[in-house]
Amino acid sequence: MPSYSAPVKDMQFLMHDVFNIAQQDVPGYAELEQDFTAAILEEAGKIASNVLAPLNAVGDAEGCRLENGVVRTPTGFKDAFDQMRQGGWPGLDMPSEYGGQNMPHVIGTAVGEMFSAANQAFTMYQGLTHGAASAILAHGTDAQKNTYLPNMVSCQWTGTMNLTEPHCGTDLGLMRTRAEPQTDGSYQISGQKIFISSGEHDLAENIIHLVLAKIPGGPEGIKGVSLFIVPKFLVNDDGSLGPRNSLSCGKIEHKMGIHGNSTCVMNYDGATGYLLGEAHKGMRAMFTMMNEARLGVGMQGLAQADVAYQNALAYAKDRLQGRAVTGAENPNGPADPLIVHPDIRRALMDQKSFTEAARAFMLWGAALIDRAHRNNDSAADGLVSLLTPVIKGFLTDEGYDMTVKAQQIYGGHGYIEEWGMSQFTRDARIAMIYEGANGVQALDLVGRKLASDGGKHVMAFFDLVKSFIKENEDHADLKTQFLDPLKAASKDLQSATMFFMQNGMKSPNAALAGSNDFMHLFGHVCLGLMWAQIAKASFAALAAGTSDTAFHQAKLATGRYYMQRRLPATALHLTRINSGAAPVMDLPAEAF
Amino acid sequence: MPSYSAPVKDMQFLMHDVFNIAQQDVPGYAELEQDFTAAILEEAGKIASNVLAPLNAVGDAEGCRLENGVVRTPTGFKDAFDQMRQGGWPGLDMPSEYGGQNMPHVIGTAVGEMFSAANQAFTMYQGLTHGAASAILAHGTDAQKNTYLPNMVSCQWTGTMNLTEPHCGTDLGLMRTRAEPQTDGSYQISGQKIFISSGEHDLAENIIHLVLAKIPGGPEGIKGVSLFIVPKFLVNDDGSLGPRNSLSCGKIEHKMGIHGNSTCVMNYDGATGYLLGEAHKGMRAMFTMMNEARLGVGMQGLAQADVAYQNALAYAKDRLQGRAVTGAENPNGPADPLIVHPDIRRALMDQKSFTEAARAFMLWGAALIDRAHRNNDSAADGLVSLLTPVIKGFLTDEGYDMTVKAQQIYGGHGYIEEWGMSQFTRDARIAMIYEGANGVQALDLVGRKLASDGGKHVMAFFDLVKSFIKENEDHADLKTQFLDPLKAASKDLQSATMFFMQNGMKSPNAALAGSNDFMHLFGHVCLGLMWAQIAKASFAALAAGTSDTAFHQAKLATGRYYMQRRLPATALHLTRINSGAAPVMDLPAEAF
Repeated sequence: MPSYSAPVKDMQFLMHDVFNIAQQDVPGYAELEQDFTAAILEEAGKIASNVLAPLNAVGDAEGCRLENGVVRTPTGFKDAFDQMRQGGWPGLDMPSEYGGQNMPHVIGTAVGEMFSAANQAFTMYQGLTHGAASAILAHGTDAQKNTYLPNMVSCQWTGTMNLTEPHCGTDLGLMRTRAEPQTDGSYQISGQKIFISSGEHDLAENIIHLVLAKIPGGPEGIKGVSLFIVPKFLVNDDGSLGPRNSLSCGKIEHKMGIHGNSTCVMNYDGATGYLLGEAHKGMRAMFTMMNEARLGVGMQGLAQADVAYQNALAYAKDRLQGRAVTGAENPNGPADPLIVHPDIRRALMDQKSFTEAARAFMLWGAALIDRAHRNNDSAADGLVSLLTPVIKGFLTDEGYDMTVKAQQIYGGHGYIEEWGMSQFTRDARIAMIYEGANGVQALDLVGRKLASDGGKHVMAFFDLVKSFIKENEDHADLKTQFLDPLKAASKDLQSATMFFMQNGMKSPNAALAGSNDFMHLFGHVCLGLMWAQIAKASFAALAAGTSDTAFHQAKLATGRYYMQRRLPATALHLTRINSGAAPVMDLPAEAF
Repeated sequence: MPSYSAPVKDMQFLMHDVFNIAQQDVPGYAELEQDFTAAILEEAGKIASNVLAPLNAVGDAEGCRLENGVVRTPTGFKDAFDQMRQGGWPGLDMPSEYGGQNMPHVIGTAVGEMFSAANQAFTMYQGLTHGAASAILAHGTDAQKNTYLPNMVSCQWTGTMNLTEPHCGTDLGLMRTRAEPQTDGSYQISGQKIFISSGEHDLAENIIHLVLAKIPGGPEGIKGVSLFIVPKFLVNDDGSLGPRNSLSCGKIEHKMGIHGNSTCVMNYDGATGYLLGEAHKGMRAMFTMMNEARLGVGMQGLAQADVAYQNALAYAKDRLQGRAVTGAENPNGPADPLIVHPDIRRALMDQKSFTEAARAFMLWGAALIDRAHRNNDSAADGLVSLLTPVIKGFLTDEGYDMTVKAQQIYGGHGYIEEWGMSQFTRDARIAMIYEGANGVQALDLVGRKLASDGGKHVMAFFDLVKSFIKENEDHADLKTQFLDPLKAASKDLQSATMFFMQNGMKSPNAALAGSNDFMHLFGHVCLGLMWAQIAKASFAALAAGTSDTAFHQAKLATGRYYMQRRLPATALHLTRINSGAAPVMDLPAEAF
């Protein structure tokens, strides 16, 4: 049975030694001193390891059951959800006026990683609630905020997002769900939505569905889509629960993974709904939720990679099999542990060098969001918008691959469900698909984000990399081991960007044929930048005579692995991008 | 629900236009005329599509059940197994003296791909029987052959291979199962074996277990391992079934995939066994079976990739979502089919360009085996030994990735079990693990095969590539589109080989740190060589005025995709190999 240990030390190092968050000029950051963040992270880590992780296999084995319209979550989920509520974790980074603790998003992200790693299916119940609450916070009227937010911030009520219909997921313009205006200002919502995570369950007394639907007579396609608040139980003026709304869960899906989360077919039969934001501007409101969700999903990629790695590492140290090629390292035992074998070490280093840099990338992204929201910093907002598809697409593609590598270390036992490694890959698999499949992320990156505001944000990214290199190249080891490879990789990214600038307009197929490679190329450069920043901090700590030399030496060795063995992938991605549209599009569809 | 269509046309093209098998100087090949192979392949294709494929999802959903020591296979498996027997398929490439049809291995491989693609879990029952029969054929006494082979060739009885124990899989020297010699020349086998595919089931009246065990007093470790025939029911002198042997299935495993195949814990409690081959030379005998099994597993990687691709392609043509960036292609419909989108096309081309070349690679490998066995050609034997870990490791790693890409095309539906795409990835996952995890394949390649016979076989491979390029470079299009990229990739492979030659002895860790990359680098060069050979045949057909221009144009376009977008991966693998041991081994085990 796998276990999970929260990476508190690594997070503390990133927050304080690498990013110096307490010194940043962002409202709320000054309070984030070492001791304060340590206390929060340790407490969250205990819940993750002791409450959520033990329920992960239970949730997978039992799954959810639909009985007479009611969904039963797995054994133990209800108690654990109560504990989360009692600890105030769901409202950690929500506004205090609605009962939250008003912490910065960087803290919410660190804690969220722990909860997701320990139990992704469980954590989705509160994750989606957080997203729905954010959408109401951004687009709701005061009355709507007062009616829904206090109970959603506490997770007394949970939330969902309803986009997909059987015939349309990515292409929401094809949507058929209707919203008929009523004389009292409300709407009657009718239609079927599928793949609704946490759509029905027994963890909360009410569920607030955010539902995309079309108001008859509105514009065609995606421009005629509006967003509605559709509660499972209507809410009386005094805040108490009123009658049951006309909506129901018709089915729960039998999925490859995340069995502990109920994925529902939701039927709306003239259900009462309330417009959220403006009519026909539903996509804008939904994007508040989706952008947050996309970052959260990128984090799931990292989280599953980390927990899978932790268990693979433990197995590699424990399982005795074969002898080191350079001579026995456990001469008194019947064999050496797996970790002595270079190919096992290679697989572990792939995972470790990804996970630690991906964590830095997530925290950096979260800090950009804090800067955007708390400082109204439009440059930070533009940069994190650019990076959102990279975080979602790259971290989930790579995160999944890492769970597969972790599973592989177990040999045959990795394929047997009771060992738990299969669940990590099965759970991680969904993150490449939901909240916009990774192909859609790549399209968003190349087709929209790259050129937005005249390409200003990607230029800002290049400047940031260039400045970092310039400011630090006096350090000879940092330069040769980290900055030089980063410079080469960044050059590949610039070449690819140039290719798109030159070809994007005249041959959009050439740009889109390379979109997946561009997303990965960009992701590698981001992780390379993270490793360079981590290395700077570790070199500094070692030079300052830190007592924790092993920690910092390990950081440097892991970073060097990434720079030498992972980052050179940028050249391959560039080669593919430069091959343009022809190889991809030459074969006519009918000739397949 | 997915379907499967047998690639008869593609196989015919490969056998006859690319490899000209009927003209090869191999006993039995002259009979393999177009019409003859077409008749066999079409018949096999019908069984695959109509009998086996419909049971694939059934097997996954029902799994096997152990009840009072008896394993029940899923609904329909027994009838289908009877049909396989009646058609004589299990003995297709087995000797006629034991009831087989004596066909070359190249035919068995083509048919095997179809059966595996249609239903991997089901096909394993007969696949393992084939392997066990081959081991008895190669190492058994005449009496043993006469006793077991006729019923195994017909699959009246099935076979298994028993290697793994709870504490040892790869490192079989740690084995604890004992074989006590009896006065009548038999042995009493005692011990526990795990992960025994088809270890117990209701498809056959007897099961012939081949079991590795140690005879007390023999040499320590792997040199003291012997192989035994341990039938479920002892066989009387007249061939009838005698008493039940003292062995039993203690448990069946709950696995990530291949649910339709029973993976058993087998307990031997003083079971009667008969030495197969020489005492303490069990590994040699087992390797006859394992080498065959490794090629068969490589084929499974290809097979799952192909069936997943077929269904992804159908979905991409059918599912309407979004509009082509260059203008609507289905203007009268609500949206265009997925296949218009470049990133979907990219994913399909990845799959198609892999699958078609991998099929050629498998058939080429099978032809080398025929040449080795039927012509006693030691060069062919050496070459296929070298290529075996590449076929097993590369085709299953890539094959799995391709199933993941196919699943991704379905978006959210790919994650829902009833759509069937999840099963392809879950079933394909085991192929990277069993019959020697892919890390072991890479170790075998770099640590053993590369230098065997003084490196003669890898040199022969390079000569073969070089000659092919030289003989065909007069064809300008073939040269620029196929031979030049092949030459570049082959040069990367040669550089990597040189690196191992120079460093392997003085720094074995440096060689092994790059073993996985070398296996993939080698695999890409092999598929590049296959594409060059395919392109030669298609250019020739087009020049000769074939009426089937679309087929050959598609081959050339698909091949160009591989050469431009997949084959350049060799440079990345070489970069990683050249980085040597340091990045991988610098971090001490205790610092992880």
